[in-house]
Amino acid sequence: RSGEMAKLTQLIDNEVFRAYATYATIVLLKMMLMSLITAYFRITRKAFANAEDTASFGKGENAKKYLRTDPDVERVRRGHLNDLENIVPFLGIGLLYALSGPELYTALLHFRIFVGARIAHTFAYLIPLPQPGRGLSWAVGYAVTISMAYKVLKTALYL
Amino acid sequence: RSGEMAKLTQLIDNEVFRAYATYATIVLLKMMLMSLITAYFRITRKAFANAEDTASFGKGENAKKYLRTDPDVERVRRGHLNDLENIVPFLGIGLLYALSGPELYTALLHFRIFVGARIAHTFAYLIPLPQPGRGLSWAVGYAVTISMAYKVLKTALYL
Amino acid sequence: RSGEMAKLTQLIDNEVFRAYATYATIVLLKMMLMSLITAYFRITRKAFANAEDTASFGKGENAKKYLRTDPDVERVRRGHLNDLENIVPFLGIGLLYALSGPELYTALLHFRIFVGARIAHTFAYLIPLPQPGRGLSWAVGYAVTISMAYKVLKTALYL
Repeated sequence: RSGEMAKLTQLIDNEVFRAYATYATIVLLKMMLMSLITAYFRITRKAFANAEDTASFGKGENAKKYLRTDPDVERVRRGHLNDLENIVPFLGIGLLYALSGPELYTALLHFRIFVGARIAHTFAYLIPLPQPGRGLSWAVGYAVTISMAYKVLKTALYL
Repeated sequence: RSGEMAKLTQLIDNEVFRAYATYATIVLLKMMLMSLITAYFRITRKAFANAEDTASFGKGENAKKYLRTDPDVERVRRGHLNDLENIVPFLGIGLLYALSGPELYTALLHFRIFVGARIAHTFAYLIPLPQPGRGLSWAVGYAVTISMAYKVLKTALYL
Repeated sequence: RSGEMAKLTQLIDNEVFRAYATYATIVLLKMMLMSLITAYFRITRKAFANAEDTASFGKGENAKKYLRTDPDVERVRRGHLNDLENIVPFLGIGLLYALSGPELYTALLHFRIFVGARIAHTFAYLIPLPQPGRGLSWAVGYAVTISMAYKVLKTALYL
């Protein structure tokens, strides 16, 4: 068993894989932060989606009026969904890319630009910045993922 | 080639990795169940999102009235989206955590609590239970993921 | 370090893992395409979700009228969300399946059918095809994922 553990440890000791582990974890924590921001706006704007969430405001019509959508809540939720749509491909393609033997320098460049772009995208969405701020940060993360997908297919293609 | 297969088999033979494989698969099957529950409510409540889904109810206005939202359908869909938002971080961070060499006991504790919390979250959402039932089950799964992320970054950090 | 790199390269040299890498990347690129199709319909239908996205159409009421939902945009977004709900389980369960030592022929069959079913699902959603076209393509991908989950649990179960 200790032989197997050593082999697993070697995977996490590989520098490219460690870089992937670090940046994937950071961008997932950033995505998880969207849940807290949604909760913050739901509570401060008093805008909830479920009847049981408004029970503390009293009963009947008094509580029902807080079952509503709020522009700030919806904005965070759109940002959260956009994260899911873009971070899921990064997680999958990025893992395969990290296993495809890229140069450490090139891999770090991909991971750093992607995570930076997604953090910029969040600020652009929540502030909000005028376009093309959000559009550009989205496109940069998208292009980085395509570039990693190209490397994976070039290395591993088996149809 | 058989040498390579042996190495892959060793990965799936590692106990922590097997535990990850088991709990990740269970929680993904649970998430997939949400699709079936959505379909069940769409059919029993006759509430559809696409015109082609209502064609069996006849043509024109007769079918159009089933293109509507239903509170039960929307509730399941919110639960499904919440699963995506929380299970995606668990999948990514949990895989890296399993590769970071945790104690088997500690790893099992993390995986079991996370999966238990998400199953509890689903019941809390669908019954629905009064708050803070759903909120607590969500927070427990969230905290477990943060704890695994801390271990990953402590072991693998490479910026 | 070169010893570790060799081991990583062996993972990506394994034929089953290469097949997983190929089909996972293809289906993620297909999912990413949904973002571009959404953008295409938002621009051609002039239907946006954020005030800052309509600023180029002028100020005030003139721009505000483009803050609206459009049936074509919503259809693509439902297809995109359905992708997320089904491709995330494939990514996670498929990776574990590829590591569980399946026969190459069986693994290729699973991956090819899943990716084919999701491409068919996208066409069925966007054309749209009459039911049960979309329903069947969804069910085929779902069944393939269940089949892989069964193999993972049979090989790795550790509760």
